[in-house]
Amino acid sequence: MEQIKVMVNGIPGNMAVNVAKHVINDSMFELIPYALTGPEITETEYTLDSTVISLIHPQESDKAIAEIKEKENYFVSVDYSHPSSVNSNAGFYCKYNLPFVMGTTGGDRKLLEDTVCSSSIPAVIAQNMAKQIVGFQAMMEYAAKTFPDLFKGYSLEIKESHQKGKADTSGTAKAMIGYFNDLGTPFSENDITKERDPEVQKNVWGIPEEYLEGHGWHTYTLVSSDKTVRFAFSHNVNGRDVYAKGTLDAVSYIDKKVKAGEKGKVYTMIDVLKGRN
Amino acid sequence: MEQIKVMVNGIPGNMAVNVAKHVINDSMFELIPYALTGPEITETEYTLDSTVISLIHPQESDKAIAEIKEKENYFVSVDYSHPSSVNSNAGFYCKYNLPFVMGTTGGDRKLLEDTVCSSSIPAVIAQNMAKQIVGFQAMMEYAAKTFPDLFKGYSLEIKESHQKGKADTSGTAKAMIGYFNDLGTPFSENDITKERDPEVQKNVWGIPEEYLEGHGWHTYTLVSSDKTVRFAFSHNVNGRDVYAKGTLDAVSYIDKKVKAGEKGKVYTMIDVLKGRN
Repeated sequence: MEQIKVMVNGIPGNMAVNVAKHVINDSMFELIPYALTGPEITETEYTLDSTVISLIHPQESDKAIAEIKEKENYFVSVDYSHPSSVNSNAGFYCKYNLPFVMGTTGGDRKLLEDTVCSSSIPAVIAQNMAKQIVGFQAMMEYAAKTFPDLFKGYSLEIKESHQKGKADTSGTAKAMIGYFNDLGTPFSENDITKERDPEVQKNVWGIPEEYLEGHGWHTYTLVSSDKTVRFAFSHNVNGRDVYAKGTLDAVSYIDKKVKAGEKGKVYTMIDVLKGRN
Repeated sequence: MEQIKVMVNGIPGNMAVNVAKHVINDSMFELIPYALTGPEITETEYTLDSTVISLIHPQESDKAIAEIKEKENYFVSVDYSHPSSVNSNAGFYCKYNLPFVMGTTGGDRKLLEDTVCSSSIPAVIAQNMAKQIVGFQAMMEYAAKTFPDLFKGYSLEIKESHQKGKADTSGTAKAMIGYFNDLGTPFSENDITKERDPEVQKNVWGIPEEYLEGHGWHTYTLVSSDKTVRFAFSHNVNGRDVYAKGTLDAVSYIDKKVKAGEKGKVYTMIDVLKGRN
C-alpha cells in the first residue's frame, strides 16, 4: 500500500509536534521534513526523533513551497498553527492546490469555508478532531432535534477542567450548551464551572500529574426537579493523542477525496466518521 | 379541559399503585375505582388515600367490564400486571375495545403486537416508561447506526444496581449492549456487573436508604486502548415516579390517538416522546 505523504504545519506547537510524531510512527504515512511556522519562531529547524524538519517562515513560504512540491509531488497538509494564521494559511493551501486538514481554532470561519469552496482542493476543517467526542456531540445534536424538551424541568451542571494555560471556555462545552438548551434546560456559558488550578485538578478531580499540562475533562449532570432521576455524561481526555489519531483519519479521508477528484469542498469530522465504513 | 378517565390494572402491585397515585394527584386525569388483579390476590378492595378501588379477579372480569363500560363510558386502561398476564390482558383489552398503555414486561411480545394490530384499538407498549432513559437509548441507537465502530478498541464496563428482589439483568442494560456492540466494543450480558446487596448499594454506591427497595442505577464506562480517553454515561433512577410520569404521558398520547380515530396500531415511547411537541 502506498504511503500518504504528510506535511505538518505549526511546528514547534504542541499539537503539531504530536501529530508529526504520530505520522512518523504510523506506516500508512510518511512525514515530509518541512513545516510552515509562525513569524515569532526564530529556529530554522526542529528535530523530532531522528527527523530534522526545516521550519519555513512566512516571508520564505512562497519560494519554499514551489521547491517542496517539485520534490515531493503530492502530499496532504495538516494545520495546527495559530488562530491569527487560520485564514492566511488556508489562502496559501488553496493558492498552491494543497489539500489540507485543519484543526486550528479561531479566525474567520466563514471566510475559511468560502476560501476552500472557491478553490480546487478539498479540506477537512474541524475545531475538535477527537472522533469519539465529535460522535458524542452528534448524538446530543440528534436528541436535541428529535426530542426537544426531553429534559424539561431538569437542572443542569457543567464542569470542565483544562490545563492552566487555557484562558477561554471549552469549545466543546459551549457547543453542548446549545443542545441542552434545546433539550429544555436553560443554561448559559457563565454557568459552566471551569477548573484551571493544577492543585485542585490533581487532588480533587484526580487528574494524573503527567497530564496537568494537557487535558480536557467534561461532565454534564442532569437532575430531575423531584431529584429522583440523575443523568451524567463525562468525556475525559488526557494528553493530545486522541486528537492526533483523529487528524490522521482525516488525512486518509481527504486523500480518498483527492483521488476521487473532489474539489472546492469542506468536510467535517462527522463526514470523516461516517466515511470510515 | 376534559379529564381523561384512567383504569389502572395490576393493583396492588407496586408499579400499578404508584401510577394510580399519580392519576389521583394529576388534575388532567380521573381514576376510575376498579382494577383488574391477579388470580393470586385474595383482597377484593384496595384503599388509596380516600379512594376505594374494587379489585376484579380474572373469573369475574368479563361481567365486570361490561358494567364498568356502561357506567364510565370511555377510559384508557393502564397495565402493570405480571409477565404471565401480558397476552391474556392484551386480548381482554382488544376484545372489549379498551385502548391501553402497557408497561408490563415479559410474555410473548410478538403475539402482543399482533393482537393489537388486528384489533380496533391503539395501544402504547413499552418495557421502559421513563422518557429520558428511552430518549438516551434512542441516542445510542442513532450513534450505533450512524457511526459503527466509533468506539473500536475501547474497553467497556457496565455496572447496574437494582433492588434486592430483581433476579434478572436490567432490560435497559441488555438493550444498551447491542448498541455498544455495533459501536465496536465486544460485550455480553454475562460481563455486566450486577449489584443486588443493599449493604453495598448503601455504603459503596451511595444509594439513599429509602430507595434500596426500588431503584435502577446504570453506568457505562468506555476507556481507550491507550487509557488516555474515558467516557462515562450514567442514569440513576430512585423510586418509580419517573415511570409513572411517563405512563401518564403515554395515556395522554393514546387518548389523542383514540380521538383521531386510530385503530389497530402499536406505539412505543419513542412515538410518545416525538408526539409531545
